[in-house]
Amino acid sequence: MGKVLIIGAGGVATVAAHKVAQHPEVFDEIMIASRTKAKCDAIVKAIGNPSIQTAKVDADNVEELVELLNGYKPDMVMNLALPYQDLTIMEACLQTGCNYLDTANYEPKDVAHFEYSWQWAYKKRFEEAGLTAILGCGFDPGVSGVYTAYAAKHYFDEIHYLDIVDCNAGNHHKAFATNFNPEINIREITQNGRYYENGQWVETKPMEIHKDLTYPNIGPRDSYLLFHEELESLVKNFPTIKRARFWMTFGQEYLTHLRVIQNIGMARIDEVDYNGVKIVPLQFLKAVLPNPQDLGENYEGETSIGCRIRGVKDGKELTYYVYNNCSHHAAYLETGMQGVSYTTGVPAMIGAMMFLKGIWKKPGVWNVEEFDPDPFMEELNKDGLPWHEVFNGDLEL
Amino acid sequence: MGKVLIIGAGGVATVAAHKVAQHPEVFDEIMIASRTKAKCDAIVKAIGNPSIQTAKVDADNVEELVELLNGYKPDMVMNLALPYQDLTIMEACLQTGCNYLDTANYEPKDVAHFEYSWQWAYKKRFEEAGLTAILGCGFDPGVSGVYTAYAAKHYFDEIHYLDIVDCNAGNHHKAFATNFNPEINIREITQNGRYYENGQWVETKPMEIHKDLTYPNIGPRDSYLLFHEELESLVKNFPTIKRARFWMTFGQEYLTHLRVIQNIGMARIDEVDYNGVKIVPLQFLKAVLPNPQDLGENYEGETSIGCRIRGVKDGKELTYYVYNNCSHHAAYLETGMQGVSYTTGVPAMIGAMMFLKGIWKKPGVWNVEEFDPDPFMEELNKDGLPWHEVFNGDLEL
Repeated sequence: MGKVLIIGAGGVATVAAHKVAQHPEVFDEIMIASRTKAKCDAIVKAIGNPSIQTAKVDADNVEELVELLNGYKPDMVMNLALPYQDLTIMEACLQTGCNYLDTANYEPKDVAHFEYSWQWAYKKRFEEAGLTAILGCGFDPGVSGVYTAYAAKHYFDEIHYLDIVDCNAGNHHKAFATNFNPEINIREITQNGRYYENGQWVETKPMEIHKDLTYPNIGPRDSYLLFHEELESLVKNFPTIKRARFWMTFGQEYLTHLRVIQNIGMARIDEVDYNGVKIVPLQFLKAVLPNPQDLGENYEGETSIGCRIRGVKDGKELTYYVYNNCSHHAAYLETGMQGVSYTTGVPAMIGAMMFLKGIWKKPGVWNVEEFDPDPFMEELNKDGLPWHEVFNGDLEL
Repeated sequence: MGKVLIIGAGGVATVAAHKVAQHPEVFDEIMIASRTKAKCDAIVKAIGNPSIQTAKVDADNVEELVELLNGYKPDMVMNLALPYQDLTIMEACLQTGCNYLDTANYEPKDVAHFEYSWQWAYKKRFEEAGLTAILGCGFDPGVSGVYTAYAAKHYFDEIHYLDIVDCNAGNHHKAFATNFNPEINIREITQNGRYYENGQWVETKPMEIHKDLTYPNIGPRDSYLLFHEELESLVKNFPTIKRARFWMTFGQEYLTHLRVIQNIGMARIDEVDYNGVKIVPLQFLKAVLPNPQDLGENYEGETSIGCRIRGVKDGKELTYYVYNNCSHHAAYLETGMQGVSYTTGVPAMIGAMMFLKGIWKKPGVWNVEEFDPDPFMEELNKDGLPWHEVFNGDLEL
């Protein structure tokens, strides 16, 4: 049906590449490109399919990207690199007539600030070029938006309250490690919390609001209110929403480590002069911490991510909870990566599949909830992320 | 009486320089040298005595040191640089006929391992050259040895139990900072504990043994058993000692920060490759943490360091506690530095004074307890570190 170029060679890209390779009926040709070609070659070796091509590209560099896209001519670029590179890759797609998908919204390197406005600004250009850009097609953002769209389509006349709940109850047996890029992870968590209520955004201090939430097959876990980027598009696309929040679990040890990392200055994202070399402390810390891609082997337990929704149908109040539980070990056995990479990489593959099948294809820049959720939901069940529904249960929220 | 060269321009060197400058009747000429001459010039400016000379020297480089010593011809070098440089400076002293004093024993850069054997190996060469080397002449080591020698000389026939107790009850109002070079501080604390009992050394895990000890004018503080270098020389020089231990106070927050620093790999002393630059994580952390020299201004509270001794005199059991309390703020007002630098820098000056007065002058390499403690004890009272005695109190140990 079409050829894809995966940019990135981290945990998410590794999972997505495995999954794309499992669907030759959709993906005719595959190329993986990143700053370090050897990492791409290692993924190809792990998959065991030598027909997958690899290339070296600096995703910060539009010219290099354009050259690669003009040479390979993919139907779609799956951007699984860092969110810093969203705009350069979108730009290269526009210049070369290529469709686009990513899993996390753009943020500039020098301020921790996650929002869609930068990428939405490309809407008109993608429209005029007849190209599709699908934003935030991982799990959260991604499946969380598809879940919401599915709930709105099938079960609610109006969604009033939306809580996205993200629990990682896994144990990687390291004193401290982040589950994805530590730089992005720490930037995300140390910023102020924010949620949407009655038409406006309410700001909180970092980790200020938390409560015990009970996760299926896991039990109660202390869950912290964070800002998460899909809130921004979901309240826009579902204007009946009165309140939208995002919750993530953290253990006390994780939070203690995080607090100390900030106290000692290692979460700083400005440059420090070290013997004449300019170094960003958080980037140096990343080089010292365990690589999230190496956590898989001994990772036990599972993740549980879902949407807890309250609204009305035919004038009656209704609650709905849709979620997936993903085993770190099962993810590792299939792809060599842990569950956090797996839950992000699988939906990225499905998004690309939806596009190549012509189901999620419309010129412009879109968030996932703006497409038909049904075929995506069907594919989740087939591709390792089955979902479950609870009707009229206690949402605890 | 003589001229001194101070090597180093940190907090301890700053205090020692102030104190040396207060005694022109002993110190005829003063020079301060360090890797960064501007830091030496800043100390001279703070003291306000333009007759003090300054120079640039790399204390790792014996040739540079020899050239400096041959040019300036000091009677004594006060080594107040890092303990990594003890051996190069001792070597340069031997080559140029210069006497030597330091405040902390040598350790190699690549292993955290504090012991005197490296420096004691120079004993014969100093003897043959007719030169005096005084090792470990800060507070602990330093005053702790003088206290012990004083107790042995005046109050005990036999010392049986020696506990050196070091409390910092100050508050610098920073989330986390070390009171002296963070690299040395963290190396010291993260190594195994060790104490002497019945003729042998007993090893403990880091921070394994701790108890509440009550410090004068402060109250009870959780105190942790560490190895500290003066134990090594004191049990050798006072062979009646059955048990010798060293205790230091740490708050829970400090220990939490330390634990996390280790967990995240920032206490590592091996080199890490960071974008092609070799960087020792602990040294990078030092560059990000507050500079101990900048803590003085808002430092409240005091330190309390002393020796708790049990032994016999005329066949009767006796306990003896001798200690000094030092106010961070008073130290800052006098020298611009906090109490931890002050309590180390003042004894260094007194040691040099003892040598230049001919009281502590004998060819060889010596620890402070091998000299007459009385004139040193007298000088402590005059120079800002008055001491107090408690007889037959409860040592809690």
